[in-house]
Amino acid sequence: MRTQVVIVGGGPSGLLLGQLLHLKGIDAVVLERKTKDYVLARIRAGILETGLVELMREAGVSERMDKERFVHTGTCISYENEMFSINFEDLIGKSVIVYGQTEVTRDLYEAREASGAKTISEAEGVAIHDADTDAPYVTYIKDGSEHRIDCDFVAGCDGFHGVSRKTIPDTVRKDYEKIFPFGWLGILSETPPVHEELIYANSARGFALCSMRNENLSRYYVQCELSDKVEDWSDEAFWEELKRRLPEDIAEKLVAGPSIEKSIAPLRSFVSEPMRWGRLFLCGDAAHIVPPTGAKGLNTAASDVRYLYRALSAYYLDKDSTGIDTYSETALARVWKAERFSWATTNLLHRFPDQSEFDLKMQRAEIESLHYNPTAQKWFAENYVGLPY
Amino acid sequence: MRTQVVIVGGGPSGLLLGQLLHLKGIDAVVLERKTKDYVLARIRAGILETGLVELMREAGVSERMDKERFVHTGTCISYENEMFSINFEDLIGKSVIVYGQTEVTRDLYEAREASGAKTISEAEGVAIHDADTDAPYVTYIKDGSEHRIDCDFVAGCDGFHGVSRKTIPDTVRKDYEKIFPFGWLGILSETPPVHEELIYANSARGFALCSMRNENLSRYYVQCELSDKVEDWSDEAFWEELKRRLPEDIAEKLVAGPSIEKSIAPLRSFVSEPMRWGRLFLCGDAAHIVPPTGAKGLNTAASDVRYLYRALSAYYLDKDSTGIDTYSETALARVWKAERFSWATTNLLHRFPDQSEFDLKMQRAEIESLHYNPTAQKWFAENYVGLPY
Repeated sequence: MRTQVVIVGGGPSGLLLGQLLHLKGIDAVVLERKTKDYVLARIRAGILETGLVELMREAGVSERMDKERFVHTGTCISYENEMFSINFEDLIGKSVIVYGQTEVTRDLYEAREASGAKTISEAEGVAIHDADTDAPYVTYIKDGSEHRIDCDFVAGCDGFHGVSRKTIPDTVRKDYEKIFPFGWLGILSETPPVHEELIYANSARGFALCSMRNENLSRYYVQCELSDKVEDWSDEAFWEELKRRLPEDIAEKLVAGPSIEKSIAPLRSFVSEPMRWGRLFLCGDAAHIVPPTGAKGLNTAASDVRYLYRALSAYYLDKDSTGIDTYSETALARVWKAERFSWATTNLLHRFPDQSEFDLKMQRAEIESLHYNPTAQKWFAENYVGLPY
Repeated sequence: MRTQVVIVGGGPSGLLLGQLLHLKGIDAVVLERKTKDYVLARIRAGILETGLVELMREAGVSERMDKERFVHTGTCISYENEMFSINFEDLIGKSVIVYGQTEVTRDLYEAREASGAKTISEAEGVAIHDADTDAPYVTYIKDGSEHRIDCDFVAGCDGFHGVSRKTIPDTVRKDYEKIFPFGWLGILSETPPVHEELIYANSARGFALCSMRNENLSRYYVQCELSDKVEDWSDEAFWEELKRRLPEDIAEKLVAGPSIEKSIAPLRSFVSEPMRWGRLFLCGDAAHIVPPTGAKGLNTAASDVRYLYRALSAYYLDKDSTGIDTYSETALARVWKAERFSWATTNLLHRFPDQSEFDLKMQRAEIESLHYNPTAQKWFAENYVGLPY
């Protein structure tokens, strides 16, 4: 088989890139290791920046999103019994929306199926060959036999554990990493969210986050030990711990209920440079991971997709390879900004095992800056809604 | 002897407080352990915020300052060969001035002498008694005999090593401290400053600062090991190291010359709470120390003096003790902001022994935010020129 672009990975990044290229008449095949049902069962982020929302519109997949989304004009931060809101709309005239990553992926799958664009599920043993030549190709195993797709370019959208990044030789690649000394225990429950905006809570017992998907689907998290196991945490223990980390008047309003999903995620900052090697381009988690504080993961992946889509369109439609040649440095410049914000916000809101009393005072002073200083709030807001491209 | 306020310490804070009280007809005695000549030989900070400038005017000691000062409408930050200026004037319509702490102290000494207000030099063995009662008194030894001053209040302006803070019982006091793992090696030289604005330099070899006192008096610093001794650093070695840490085009312009002062200072963040115990009030370094990055030391001391002067004036002139009762929390609220900025600016610009490559990338991303984002610049500028009272 031959195509113009092989997209490795059928998560939101790969599907979005595929759909955008399809609309420009650029032929792409998406290879996904899992089934569609598996992909759609993954619970992920739910805060979309304007940049991603616009890209969904450009990809023609915004109809359901525009109907079902919730606009969030601000976000709340609490510390012990104090709580304040940072109003993006007032500060910079922008907002974010709540619409689950699962829904984004579903809309993209459906659009892709409707358009007849090719997605190959359950493609195992994917290998990227000759990416540093003018004739790359991708092989995979499906239904017991090996297949080969020749192509012009390969887009690596296969996440942190995927094969794409590992295809770039160690001698070329440089990885930067920070592992945070705690995790997030998260639950999904069919209960009304405790507050109309997200609440990012700093407390003496550790971080907590009150998030949501819709009026009757809440997503809550508490900072936990890396050694904790999901089985150690009953629903009751989770709700009790969550309440202790929220301002009292919020905790009183919290509606608890059975969890329909419960999991523990580690927190990691990770960037691999470069994001291009020959005709292979990395997008999203394949090249970088952010801790979830500040919701930059999916949004930064979308920013990579935007740059790569523009670069490939210019290449095929305008015979202009500038975007391709500068992809790595352009994408990385924005990635590092998102990494900075995610790292700073994680530092701002969590308790660290080695924090001195002075460190805690500095953390408190930073939170109080955000509480009381409009310029500090504006800087936070600009980063939260997404810095310019 | 009896007075209304005993001021322990004849540095700039104590003298400024004394002068301000004197003009309101409030009787104060300044006790200083050293001679005037000794105090005036100390080389200290040189950047004054508007708040301190206004207080000098209020104290009637601004005549020479207003003639000799240099207005700095911005400051420069460099990283490797990149340099940019943060223009306070453009961003927030404010500026700072360059006028040495030594000159501030001299002007205050002269005003105090001219007004006949009492300053007792070479007062040794100062002890503060009964500060938690309505009848405090201070004793000291001068010319071999002990003296006693009864008073209403004691202002502890005697610096980090002074007796005032230590007078507050350990059971009441709580100290917060961070010792940075490096020092600043500084020299003063009779050479023209390399640049019209200060340059704060982040480089792979460590931090450097290009500062000045006037057109022919430069003050330069390089980050050094805590174990370094002044004798290890020849003038030549200093100039060579400084040049390596500056952008090449700046280094080329640097005029070297013999040092007329050379010293190493450790970098410390320190805050002691509360700043009031009964009738004893702490001001400046007696209660808190900042690392010098960002020039908050003298300015934060002046902010304490301003609060205490207002509080004592209200007490004596309006029979209003609100200011006295709230002094500690009011002063500390601003102190912690200055501590935050000094700590953050120190983190931003120095190399730390335990910095990972990821940490360096975060530092770089923070510097680039300041380079390219006007809101980040504005937040820096607001802090640098001094947050509102």
